[in-house]
Amino acid sequence: MPHTYEFPRPALTVDCVVFGFDGAGLQVLLIKRGIEPFLGTWALPGGFVRMEENLEEAARRELEEETSLRDVFLEQLYTFGDPGRDPRGRVVSVAWFALVHPEQHPAKGDTDASEAAWFHISDLPDLAFDHDHILTTALERLRGKIRYQPVGFELLPKRFTLTQLQALYEAILGRPIDKRNFRKKLLAFDFLIPLDEFTGGAHRPARLHRFDRRKYDTLVKKGFLFEL
Amino acid sequence: MPHTYEFPRPALTVDCVVFGFDGAGLQVLLIKRGIEPFLGTWALPGGFVRMEENLEEAARRELEEETSLRDVFLEQLYTFGDPGRDPRGRVVSVAWFALVHPEQHPAKGDTDASEAAWFHISDLPDLAFDHDHILTTALERLRGKIRYQPVGFELLPKRFTLTQLQALYEAILGRPIDKRNFRKKLLAFDFLIPLDEFTGGAHRPARLHRFDRRKYDTLVKKGFLFEL
Repeated sequence: MPHTYEFPRPALTVDCVVFGFDGAGLQVLLIKRGIEPFLGTWALPGGFVRMEENLEEAARRELEEETSLRDVFLEQLYTFGDPGRDPRGRVVSVAWFALVHPEQHPAKGDTDASEAAWFHISDLPDLAFDHDHILTTALERLRGKIRYQPVGFELLPKRFTLTQLQALYEAILGRPIDKRNFRKKLLAFDFLIPLDEFTGGAHRPARLHRFDRRKYDTLVKKGFLFEL
Repeated sequence: MPHTYEFPRPALTVDCVVFGFDGAGLQVLLIKRGIEPFLGTWALPGGFVRMEENLEEAARRELEEETSLRDVFLEQLYTFGDPGRDPRGRVVSVAWFALVHPEQHPAKGDTDASEAAWFHISDLPDLAFDHDHILTTALERLRGKIRYQPVGFELLPKRFTLTQLQALYEAILGRPIDKRNFRKKLLAFDFLIPLDEFTGGAHRPARLHRFDRRKYDTLVKKGFLFEL
Protein backbone atom coordinates (compact mmCIF):
# COMPACT_ATOMS: atom_id res chain seq x y z
CA MET A 1 0.00 0.00 0.00
CA PRO A 2 1.67 3.22 -1.12
CA HIS A 3 1.96 6.30 1.09
CA THR A 4 1.35 9.73 -0.34
CA TYR A 5 2.50 13.12 0.92
CA GLU A 6 2.07 16.67 -0.36
CA PHE A 7 5.83 17.36 -0.23
CA PRO A 8 8.68 14.94 -0.91
CA ARG A 9 10.22 13.34 2.20
CA PRO A 10 13.63 11.82 2.81
CA ALA A 11 13.67 8.25 4.08
CA LEU A 12 14.92 7.92 7.66
CA THR A 13 17.33 5.27 8.91
CA VAL A 14 19.43 4.57 11.99
CA ASP A 15 22.99 3.21 11.99
CA CYS A 16 24.95 1.84 14.93
CA VAL A 17 28.68 2.09 15.55
CA VAL A 18 29.46 -0.56 18.17
CA PHE A 19 33.03 -0.58 19.46
CA GLY A 20 34.68 -3.48 21.24
CA PHE A 21 38.16 -4.29 22.51
CA ASP A 22 39.68 -7.75 22.32
CA GLY A 23 42.80 -6.99 24.34
CA ALA A 24 44.85 -6.16 21.27
CA GLY A 25 42.93 -3.69 19.16
CA LEU A 26 39.80 -1.60 18.97
CA GLN A 27 37.07 -3.39 17.04
CA VAL A 28 33.85 -2.43 15.35
CA LEU A 29 30.82 -4.64 14.73
CA LEU A 30 29.87 -4.85 11.06
CA ILE A 31 27.28 -6.73 9.03
CA LYS A 32 27.50 -8.03 5.50
CA ARG A 33 24.61 -6.63 3.51
CA GLY A 34 22.14 -9.29 2.34
CA ILE A 35 20.20 -6.95 0.04
CA GLU A 36 20.84 -4.28 -2.57
CA PRO A 37 22.28 -1.70 -2.69
CA PHE A 38 25.81 -2.74 -1.71
CA LEU A 39 24.77 -6.43 -1.59
CA GLY A 40 27.63 -8.40 -0.04
CA THR A 41 29.42 -5.29 1.21
CA TRP A 42 30.19 -4.75 4.90
CA ALA A 43 28.24 -1.99 6.62
CA LEU A 44 27.21 -0.67 10.01
CA PRO A 45 24.17 -2.43 11.47
CA GLY A 46 21.05 -0.34 10.89
CA GLY A 47 17.90 0.15 8.86
CA PHE A 48 14.70 2.09 8.38
CA VAL A 49 12.88 3.73 11.27
CA ARG A 50 9.32 2.52 11.74
CA MET A 51 6.53 5.02 12.26
CA GLU A 52 5.59 3.80 15.74
CA GLU A 53 9.07 3.60 17.32
CA ASN A 54 11.36 6.35 18.51
CA LEU A 55 14.88 6.69 17.14
CA GLU A 56 16.63 4.81 19.91
CA GLU A 57 14.11 1.97 19.74
CA ALA A 58 14.78 1.73 16.01
CA ALA A 59 18.53 1.54 16.61
CA ARG A 60 18.07 -1.13 19.30
CA ARG A 61 15.74 -3.19 17.12
CA GLU A 62 18.01 -3.09 14.08
CA LEU A 63 21.06 -3.90 16.16
CA GLU A 64 19.40 -6.92 17.70
CA GLU A 65 17.88 -8.13 14.43
CA GLU A 66 21.12 -7.92 12.52
CA THR A 67 23.68 -8.85 15.17
CA SER A 68 21.70 -10.35 18.11
CA LEU A 69 23.29 -7.73 20.37
CA ARG A 70 20.95 -6.31 23.00
CA ASP A 71 20.87 -4.33 26.24
CA VAL A 72 23.67 -1.98 25.29
CA PHE A 73 23.94 1.67 26.21
CA LEU A 74 23.40 3.61 22.99
CA GLU A 75 24.42 7.23 22.73
CA GLN A 76 23.28 9.39 19.85
CA LEU A 77 26.28 10.30 17.72
CA TYR A 78 25.24 12.56 14.84
CA THR A 79 22.70 12.74 12.05
CA PHE A 80 24.04 12.36 8.54
CA GLY A 81 21.89 13.84 5.81
CA ASP A 82 23.90 14.91 2.78
CA PRO A 83 21.93 14.45 -0.44
CA GLY A 84 23.70 11.71 -2.40
CA ARG A 85 24.92 9.68 0.58
CA ASP A 86 22.60 6.82 -0.45
CA PRO A 87 22.07 5.63 -4.05
CA ARG A 88 18.39 4.88 -3.31
CA GLY A 89 17.63 8.59 -3.05
CA ARG A 90 17.54 10.97 -0.14
CA VAL A 91 18.11 8.99 3.03
CA VAL A 92 18.90 10.69 6.33
CA SER A 93 20.51 8.52 9.00
CA VAL A 94 20.62 9.07 12.74
CA ALA A 95 23.81 7.38 13.95
CA TRP A 96 24.26 5.90 17.42
CA PHE A 97 27.28 4.50 19.15
CA ALA A 98 27.95 2.01 21.90
CA LEU A 99 30.84 0.34 23.71
CA VAL A 100 30.50 -3.38 24.40
CA HIS A 101 32.65 -6.30 25.32
CA PRO A 102 33.11 -8.48 22.21
CA GLU A 103 32.52 -11.60 24.33
CA GLN A 104 28.94 -10.52 25.04
CA HIS A 105 28.19 -10.80 21.41
CA PRO A 106 27.66 -13.96 19.38
CA ALA A 107 27.67 -12.40 15.88
CA LYS A 108 24.79 -13.52 13.65
CA GLY A 109 22.83 -12.14 10.70
CA ASP A 110 19.32 -11.86 9.26
CA THR A 111 17.70 -11.18 5.87
CA ASP A 112 19.15 -7.70 5.55
CA ALA A 113 22.46 -8.79 7.05
CA SER A 114 23.71 -12.19 5.93
CA GLU A 115 26.55 -12.12 8.41
CA ALA A 116 27.83 -10.10 11.38
CA ALA A 117 31.43 -9.92 12.59
CA TRP A 118 33.95 -7.88 14.54
CA PHE A 119 36.73 -6.11 12.64
CA HIS A 120 39.81 -4.36 13.96
CA ILE A 121 39.58 -0.70 13.04
CA SER A 122 43.15 -0.92 11.77
CA ASP A 123 42.07 -3.54 9.22
CA LEU A 124 38.65 -2.63 7.87
CA PRO A 125 36.97 -3.80 4.67
CA ASP A 126 35.41 -1.28 2.26
CA LEU A 127 32.16 -0.05 3.78
CA ALA A 128 28.78 0.63 2.15
CA PHE A 129 27.28 4.13 1.80
CA ASP A 130 29.12 6.81 3.81
CA HIS A 131 29.69 4.40 6.68
CA ASP A 132 33.44 5.06 6.74
CA HIS A 133 32.60 8.69 7.44
CA ILE A 134 30.14 7.73 10.20
CA LEU A 135 32.74 5.41 11.72
CA THR A 136 35.39 8.14 11.64
CA THR A 137 32.99 10.51 13.40
CA ALA A 138 32.35 7.90 16.10
CA LEU A 139 36.06 7.30 16.55
CA GLU A 140 36.67 11.03 16.96
CA ARG A 141 33.91 11.17 19.55
CA LEU A 142 35.47 8.26 21.43
CA ARG A 143 38.93 9.86 21.26
CA GLY A 144 37.48 13.08 22.63
CA LYS A 145 35.59 11.21 25.34
CA ILE A 146 38.61 9.51 26.90
CA ARG A 147 40.14 12.91 27.62
CA TYR A 148 37.12 13.92 29.73
CA GLN A 149 35.79 10.68 31.17
CA PRO A 150 37.08 7.35 32.35
CA VAL A 151 36.57 4.67 29.70
CA GLY A 152 36.97 0.94 30.01
CA PHE A 153 34.14 -0.30 32.16
CA GLU A 154 32.19 -1.57 29.14
CA LEU A 155 35.25 -2.71 27.21
CA LEU A 156 37.51 -4.53 29.67
CA PRO A 157 37.06 -7.72 31.68
CA LYS A 158 35.94 -7.17 35.27
CA ARG A 159 39.51 -7.62 36.50
CA PHE A 160 42.32 -6.29 34.36
CA THR A 161 45.95 -5.26 34.51
CA LEU A 162 47.19 -1.72 34.00
CA THR A 163 48.89 -3.00 30.87
CA GLN A 164 45.49 -4.04 29.50
CA LEU A 165 44.02 -0.64 30.35
CA GLN A 166 46.91 1.09 28.65
CA ALA A 167 46.48 -1.16 25.60
CA LEU A 168 42.82 -0.05 25.42
CA TYR A 169 43.77 3.63 25.54
CA GLU A 170 46.45 3.06 22.92
CA ALA A 171 43.96 1.20 20.72
CA ILE A 172 41.49 4.09 20.94
CA LEU A 173 44.14 6.74 20.33
CA GLY A 174 45.80 4.69 17.62
CA ARG A 175 49.28 5.46 18.98
CA PRO A 176 51.59 4.30 21.77
CA ILE A 177 51.55 6.27 25.03
CA ASP A 178 54.24 6.60 27.66
CA LYS A 179 53.73 3.97 30.35
CA ARG A 180 55.07 5.92 33.32
CA ASN A 181 53.18 9.07 32.46
CA PHE A 182 49.97 7.11 31.79
CA ARG A 183 50.09 5.32 35.13
CA LYS A 184 51.00 8.40 37.10
CA LYS A 185 48.15 10.48 35.68
CA LEU A 186 45.66 7.64 35.72
CA LEU A 187 46.27 6.61 39.32
CA ALA A 188 45.91 10.24 40.43
CA PHE A 189 42.21 10.05 39.49
CA ASP A 190 41.82 7.28 42.02
CA PHE A 191 39.08 5.26 40.31
CA LEU A 192 40.97 1.95 40.24
CA ILE A 193 41.09 -0.58 43.04
CA PRO A 194 44.26 -2.73 43.14
CA LEU A 195 43.44 -6.35 43.97
CA ASP A 196 45.51 -8.98 45.74
CA GLU A 197 45.34 -11.08 42.61
CA PHE A 198 47.93 -11.44 39.92
CA THR A 199 48.17 -12.70 36.39
CA GLY A 200 50.99 -13.66 34.04
CA GLY A 201 52.54 -16.53 35.96
CA ALA A 202 55.21 -16.65 38.66
CA HIS A 203 57.93 -15.02 36.58
CA ARG A 204 56.52 -11.55 35.99
CA PRO A 205 53.17 -11.40 37.76
CA ALA A 206 51.00 -8.35 37.00
CA ARG A 207 48.55 -7.06 39.53
CA LEU A 208 44.87 -7.14 38.64
CA HIS A 209 42.64 -4.14 39.19
CA ARG A 210 38.98 -3.39 39.05
CA PHE A 211 37.07 -0.13 38.68
CA ASP A 212 35.74 1.62 41.77
CA ARG A 213 32.29 1.93 40.26
CA ARG A 214 31.16 4.80 42.47
CA LYS A 215 34.22 6.92 41.73
CA TYR A 216 34.14 5.90 38.08
CA ASP A 217 30.52 7.01 37.72
CA THR A 218 31.22 10.27 39.54
CA LEU A 219 34.07 11.02 37.15
CA VAL A 220 31.91 10.19 34.13
CA LYS A 221 29.47 12.82 35.36
CA LYS A 222 31.93 15.35 36.71
CA GLY A 223 34.54 14.96 34.00
CA PHE A 224 38.31 15.24 34.25
CA LEU A 225 41.11 16.26 31.97
CA PHE A 226 43.38 13.37 31.06
CA GLU A 227 46.10 14.69 28.82
CA LEU A 228 47.83 11.86 27.05
CA MET B 1 1.92 17.20 -7.00
CA PRO B 2 1.77 14.40 -4.44
CA HIS B 3 4.77 12.20 -3.61
CA THR B 4 4.29 8.48 -3.17
CA TYR B 5 6.49 5.96 -1.34
CA GLU B 6 6.21 2.23 -0.72
CA PHE B 7 6.67 2.66 3.05
CA PRO B 8 5.47 5.52 5.26
CA ARG B 9 8.07 8.20 6.01
CA PRO B 10 8.40 10.71 8.83
CA ALA B 11 8.63 14.36 7.82
CA LEU B 12 12.03 15.91 8.53
CA THR B 13 12.61 19.35 10.02
CA VAL B 14 15.46 21.36 11.50
CA ASP B 15 15.23 23.59 14.58
CA CYS B 16 17.76 26.14 15.78
CA VAL B 17 18.60 27.09 19.35
CA VAL B 18 20.42 30.42 19.14
CA PHE B 19 21.79 31.74 22.41
CA GLY B 20 22.79 35.35 23.04
CA PHE B 21 23.94 37.36 26.04
CA ASP B 22 22.86 40.95 26.66
CA GLY B 23 25.16 41.60 29.60
CA ALA B 24 22.53 40.62 32.15
CA GLY B 25 21.11 37.26 31.17
CA LEU B 26 21.35 34.42 28.71
CA GLN B 27 18.88 34.85 25.87
CA VAL B 28 17.39 32.64 23.19
CA LEU B 29 16.06 33.71 19.81
CA LEU B 30 12.41 32.71 19.26
CA ILE B 31 9.85 33.24 16.53
CA LYS B 32 6.11 33.60 16.82
CA ARG B 33 4.43 31.03 14.63
CA GLY B 34 2.47 32.53 11.72
CA ILE B 35 0.82 29.24 10.71
CA GLU B 36 -0.90 26.28 12.31
CA PRO B 37 -0.25 24.23 14.36
CA PHE B 38 0.56 26.42 17.37
CA LEU B 39 -0.38 29.58 15.43
CA GLY B 40 0.66 32.59 17.50
CA THR B 41 2.81 30.51 19.87
CA TRP B 42 6.54 31.15 20.30
CA ALA B 43 8.88 28.48 18.94
CA LEU B 44 12.45 27.84 17.90
CA PRO B 45 13.23 29.00 14.36
CA GLY B 46 13.12 26.05 11.97
CA GLY B 47 11.19 24.23 9.28
CA PHE B 48 11.12 21.43 6.76
CA VAL B 49 14.26 20.15 5.08
CA ARG B 50 14.22 20.43 1.29
CA MET B 51 15.30 17.47 -0.80
CA GLU B 52 18.25 19.21 -2.42
CA GLU B 53 19.87 20.76 0.67
CA ASN B 54 21.88 19.15 3.46
CA LEU B 55 20.79 19.43 7.08
CA GLU B 56 23.02 22.36 7.97
CA GLU B 57 21.96 24.24 4.86
CA ALA B 58 18.33 23.72 5.87
CA ALA B 59 19.03 25.08 9.36
CA ARG B 60 20.86 28.10 7.93
CA ARG B 61 18.09 28.82 5.42
CA GLU B 62 15.29 28.60 7.97
CA LEU B 63 17.20 30.71 10.46
CA GLU B 64 17.79 33.45 7.91
CA GLU B 65 14.23 33.32 6.53
CA GLU B 66 12.61 33.53 9.92
CA THR B 67 15.02 35.76 11.84
CA SER B 68 17.32 37.34 9.21
CA LEU B 69 20.28 35.94 11.15
CA ARG B 70 23.11 34.65 8.95
CA ASP B 71 26.75 33.62 8.99
CA VAL B 72 26.61 31.96 12.40
CA PHE B 73 28.52 28.88 13.47
CA LEU B 74 25.93 26.10 13.80
CA GLU B 75 26.74 22.97 15.73
CA GLN B 76 24.51 19.91 15.51
CA LEU B 77 22.84 19.35 18.87
CA TYR B 78 20.66 16.25 18.78
CA THR B 79 17.90 14.68 16.70
CA PHE B 80 14.48 14.50 18.30
CA GLY B 81 12.16 11.85 16.92
CA ASP B 82 9.63 10.64 19.47
CA PRO B 83 6.33 9.73 17.83
CA GLY B 84 3.78 12.25 19.08
CA ARG B 85 6.14 15.21 19.40
CA ASP B 86 4.26 16.97 16.57
CA PRO B 87 0.44 17.03 16.18
CA ARG B 88 0.80 16.90 12.36
CA GLY B 89 2.03 13.32 12.53
CA ARG B 90 5.49 11.82 12.71
CA VAL B 91 8.02 14.62 12.38
CA VAL B 92 11.69 14.11 13.19
CA SER B 93 13.72 17.23 13.88
CA VAL B 94 17.47 17.69 13.70
CA ALA B 95 18.30 20.44 16.19
CA TRP B 96 21.27 22.82 15.87
CA PHE B 97 22.66 25.37 18.19
CA ALA B 98 24.64 28.58 17.90
CA LEU B 99 26.04 31.36 20.05
CA VAL B 100 25.68 34.88 18.70
CA HIS B 101 25.86 38.42 19.92
CA PRO B 102 22.30 39.79 20.18
CA GLU B 103 23.45 43.08 18.58
CA GLN B 104 24.29 41.25 15.34
CA HIS B 105 20.68 40.39 14.95
CA PRO B 106 17.84 42.65 13.86
CA ALA B 107 14.90 40.34 14.68
CA LYS B 108 12.30 40.01 11.91
CA GLY B 109 9.74 37.48 10.70
CA ASP B 110 8.33 35.87 7.56
CA THR B 111 5.19 33.96 6.55
CA ASP B 112 5.89 31.04 8.87
CA ALA B 113 7.16 33.35 11.62
CA SER B 114 5.20 36.54 12.08
CA GLU B 115 7.74 37.88 14.54
CA ALA B 116 11.19 37.10 15.96
CA ALA B 117 12.56 38.23 19.32
CA TRP B 118 15.11 37.50 22.03
CA PHE B 119 13.89 36.14 25.35
CA HIS B 120 15.78 35.71 28.60
CA ILE B 121 15.88 32.02 29.41
CA SER B 122 14.75 32.87 32.94
CA ASP B 123 11.54 34.36 31.53
CA LEU B 124 10.34 32.24 28.62
CA PRO B 125 6.88 32.06 27.09
CA ASP B 126 5.19 28.69 26.50
CA LEU B 127 6.84 27.04 23.52
CA ALA B 128 5.32 25.07 20.64
CA PHE B 129 5.89 21.33 20.12
CA ASP B 130 8.64 19.84 22.35
CA HIS B 131 10.76 22.95 21.94
CA ASP B 132 11.15 23.41 25.70
CA HIS B 133 12.80 19.97 25.74
CA ILE B 134 15.07 20.89 22.80
CA LEU B 135 16.01 24.15 24.53
CA THR B 136 16.80 22.32 27.77
CA THR B 137 19.04 19.92 25.87
CA ALA B 138 20.88 22.85 24.29
CA LEU B 139 21.31 24.52 27.64
CA GLU B 140 22.76 21.34 29.13
CA ARG B 141 25.17 21.12 26.21
CA LEU B 142 26.25 24.72 26.75
CA ARG B 143 26.67 24.14 30.49
CA GLY B 144 28.82 21.10 29.76
CA LYS B 145 30.82 22.98 27.16
CA ILE B 146 31.98 25.79 29.45
CA ARG B 147 33.67 23.23 31.68
CA TYR B 148 35.83 22.01 28.81
CA GLN B 149 36.27 25.01 26.55
CA PRO B 150 36.54 28.75 26.82
CA VAL B 151 33.25 30.43 25.95
CA GLY B 152 32.53 34.06 25.36
CA PHE B 153 34.14 34.99 22.08
CA GLU B 154 30.81 34.87 20.24
CA LEU B 155 28.77 36.29 23.11
CA LEU B 156 30.73 39.22 24.53
CA PRO B 157 31.76 42.56 23.04
CA LYS B 158 35.33 42.65 21.69
CA ARG B 159 36.54 44.35 24.88
CA PHE B 160 34.97 43.36 28.15
CA THR B 161 35.55 43.44 31.89
CA LEU B 162 36.10 40.36 34.03
CA THR B 163 32.79 41.23 35.71
CA GLN B 164 31.05 40.91 32.34
CA LEU B 165 32.75 37.58 31.67
CA GLN B 166 31.70 36.31 35.09
CA ALA B 167 28.14 37.52 34.46
CA LEU B 168 28.12 35.45 31.26
CA TYR B 169 29.27 32.31 33.09
CA GLU B 170 26.71 32.91 35.82
CA ALA B 171 23.98 33.40 33.21
CA ILE B 172 24.88 30.10 31.55
CA LEU B 173 25.14 28.21 34.82
CA GLY B 174 22.04 29.89 36.23
CA ARG B 175 23.72 30.49 39.59
CA PRO B 176 26.20 32.88 41.18
CA ILE B 177 29.87 31.88 41.27
CA ASP B 178 32.60 32.97 43.64
CA LYS B 179 34.45 35.95 42.14
CA ARG B 180 37.89 35.29 43.58
CA ASN B 181 37.85 31.62 42.67
CA PHE B 182 36.53 32.39 39.18
CA ARG B 183 39.25 34.92 38.44
CA LYS B 184 42.04 32.84 39.86
CA LYS B 185 41.13 29.77 37.83
CA LEU B 186 40.27 31.70 34.72
CA LEU B 187 43.47 33.74 34.63
CA ALA B 188 45.51 30.57 35.07
CA PHE B 189 44.39 29.46 31.59
CA ASP B 190 46.05 32.59 30.21
CA PHE B 191 43.72 33.28 27.27
CA LEU B 192 42.83 36.84 28.25
CA ILE B 193 44.84 39.94 27.40
CA PRO B 194 44.46 42.82 29.88
CA LEU B 195 44.25 46.17 28.08
CA ASP B 196 45.30 49.62 29.20
CA GLU B 197 41.72 50.72 28.86
CA PHE B 198 39.14 51.10 31.56
CA THR B 199 35.42 51.43 31.89
CA GLY B 200 33.03 52.50 34.63
CA GLY B 201 34.15 56.10 35.12
CA ALA B 202 36.79 57.63 37.32
CA HIS B 203 35.39 56.35 40.59
CA ARG B 204 35.74 52.59 40.22
CA PRO B 205 37.31 51.95 36.84
CA ALA B 206 37.32 48.34 35.64
CA ARG B 207 40.00 47.09 33.32
CA LEU B 208 38.95 45.93 29.87
CA HIS B 209 40.22 42.66 28.44
CA ARG B 210 40.13 40.94 25.12
CA PHE B 211 40.58 37.29 24.19
CA ASP B 212 43.97 36.10 22.97
CA ARG B 213 42.46 34.49 19.92
CA ARG B 214 45.33 32.08 19.29
CA LYS B 215 45.33 30.76 22.86
CA TYR B 216 41.54 30.76 22.96
CA ASP B 217 41.33 28.64 19.80
CA THR B 218 44.02 26.28 21.08
CA LEU B 219 42.04 25.76 24.29
CA VAL B 220 38.82 25.16 22.34
CA LYS B 221 40.64 22.37 20.52
CA LYS B 222 42.73 21.04 23.36
CA GLY B 223 40.12 21.44 26.09
CA PHE B 224 40.60 22.25 29.75
CA LEU B 225 38.82 21.50 32.96
CA PHE B 226 37.26 24.56 34.49
CA GLU B 227 35.62 23.53 37.73
CA LEU B 228 33.20 26.21 38.85
